[in-house]
Amino acid sequence: MPELRKDPITGRWVIISSERGKRPNEFQDQRSKKRAGFCPFDEGNERTTPNEVLAYRAEGANCANGPGWRLRVVPNKFPALQIEGDLNKQGDGIYDKMNGIGAHEVIVESPDHNATLSNLPAKAMEEVFWAYRDRMEDLKKDTRFQYVLIFKNEGLSAGATLEHSHSQLIALPIVPIQVQEELDGCKRHYNLKERCIFCDIIRQEMQKGTRVVMESQLFIALAPFAPRFPFETWILPKKHISCYACSTNEDFKDLADLMQNLLRKMDRALSTPPYNYIVHTSPFKEEHNDYYHWHIEFMPKLTNVAGFEWGSGFYINPTPPEEAAKFLRDIKL
Amino acid sequence: MPELRKDPITGRWVIISSERGKRPNEFQDQRSKKRAGFCPFDEGNERTTPNEVLAYRAEGANCANGPGWRLRVVPNKFPALQIEGDLNKQGDGIYDKMNGIGAHEVIVESPDHNATLSNLPAKAMEEVFWAYRDRMEDLKKDTRFQYVLIFKNEGLSAGATLEHSHSQLIALPIVPIQVQEELDGCKRHYNLKERCIFCDIIRQEMQKGTRVVMESQLFIALAPFAPRFPFETWILPKKHISCYACSTNEDFKDLADLMQNLLRKMDRALSTPPYNYIVHTSPFKEEHNDYYHWHIEFMPKLTNVAGFEWGSGFYINPTPPEEAAKFLRDIKL
Repeated sequence: MPELRKDPITGRWVIISSERGKRPNEFQDQRSKKRAGFCPFDEGNERTTPNEVLAYRAEGANCANGPGWRLRVVPNKFPALQIEGDLNKQGDGIYDKMNGIGAHEVIVESPDHNATLSNLPAKAMEEVFWAYRDRMEDLKKDTRFQYVLIFKNEGLSAGATLEHSHSQLIALPIVPIQVQEELDGCKRHYNLKERCIFCDIIRQEMQKGTRVVMESQLFIALAPFAPRFPFETWILPKKHISCYACSTNEDFKDLADLMQNLLRKMDRALSTPPYNYIVHTSPFKEEHNDYYHWHIEFMPKLTNVAGFEWGSGFYINPTPPEEAAKFLRDIKL
Repeated sequence: MPELRKDPITGRWVIISSERGKRPNEFQDQRSKKRAGFCPFDEGNERTTPNEVLAYRAEGANCANGPGWRLRVVPNKFPALQIEGDLNKQGDGIYDKMNGIGAHEVIVESPDHNATLSNLPAKAMEEVFWAYRDRMEDLKKDTRFQYVLIFKNEGLSAGATLEHSHSQLIALPIVPIQVQEELDGCKRHYNLKERCIFCDIIRQEMQKGTRVVMESQLFIALAPFAPRFPFETWILPKKHISCYACSTNEDFKDLADLMQNLLRKMDRALSTPPYNYIVHTSPFKEEHNDYYHWHIEFMPKLTNVAGFEWGSGFYINPTPPEEAAKFLRDIKL
């Protein structure tokens, strides 16, 4: 059983996931690991994954775990957390821990092994965002969970272990520390000003324009004022919405269009970089609120993060966000 | 002039260092960059670095920036921060920034191009710790600085850009967020219990023993209860000392011995892994206190940190610290 453990000094939780455990000598193998030829996410190989928890299929292709799907969500075969069991929270002297209960799922974004988000049909990109919502709504019913974290690793150096395009989801019995710190910051601002800080940021950025990467009718992509990474980009709904899953299909249609254009610009600017993105939304217990604004944080993986950053939380970014935004704005698709 | 910018939501500061700036297409070059044959840190090449700010030399070899040194500290040729100027703190609507004032120095640990910390003579390792202290004490006199961060990147994948063994130092006009969060956690504990939380941890770990990696007379190396990374190891003085630079030469002699043995065990356990370590000490303004305990955080670079970790501050660690500690304990040197 994996364990959730809390660092007593900072309050940061970690998953100690010995089921995925490696002997020390296995780490070296991994450094030079090659990808295998067989892909469990390809159409026709459905039986090699755990049973699907969601799939979008053509009418008539109603057979679960068979072919004919456009998008498929399956439990991770090597989950970091375990779905069965009680949380069993307990102390151990100065320390706190609980059972590593959670869900760990994979969103397979296309049956096509060579698809990428930037070249998917528009409708398929929209359905990726639907799938995130549908899984969040389903997992919310499990009262053990406080948060669902959705993220994507694209490219080996961004942490993807399979090249077939996919996102991941982790449902957690705690709120991750970085989300909690954002929430705390947002509440501080709201208590002072009675306004959402993200709404204030969007207003200031739209006025100034220098850090705006692109806009659609309902969404905006911008380079944040203090980005940790070169070309870090945030995608936010222009109107205040605290909760990802409360967005409408119209929102997702607009977002899908903006997201694909952003990805295409990144591909052109940075020669199809590896990247990560992550969805930040409000925790289940406070889904509807006036202080937090859901958004996606997108980070191309261009620089090697070293000891300085790890140990201090203090980042050196060689690319001013104004330059990155202008560079991306100027790319004509 | 580089800039220090504060994220308005989390309060995290970043350096926007456009002097080190890259055009977008330069990032790709970097991904496959090879190391050059010439090394500015080799003995005899002193004139190719900025002028030294500290050196330990043999008696008689008193010529600054000439050969005959055992250890040498020079300003970084491509500094992330700039030493000259005023802080010039200012607001820009919702945002806060200041000039990127700071020192960025390189501690060249040996004149020998092929030396590593684990195979240095014992005395030379001791002098590395002396150099950290001497530079901290000197930089403290500059009232613009609140903190000196000392760290080491060993190996290309841990972020080292030159292979000649060296550490780095960054003097900052702010306290880095992760240190601040540790300080806040320590103060919370102290206010509740009137005890240093690190002292409590050391006491509990010594009683239990399962996470102790090794001990010397004055120091202890342990696998923390909730480590972010496999084989993450903290090195702490057993007695309460809040400030690195307040340690005695006797402390550093004992620490050097423990550190080299730890590095040798890591080399044996993990086939000479790339690694990072970072010195955590109290900020200048509160150097002597009862709540914070200086220490070194050591992290071998074994796993690829992906989007999940970046976006959430929530880590998945496949190696339980009890297993890592036992594995290291069992290695006979």
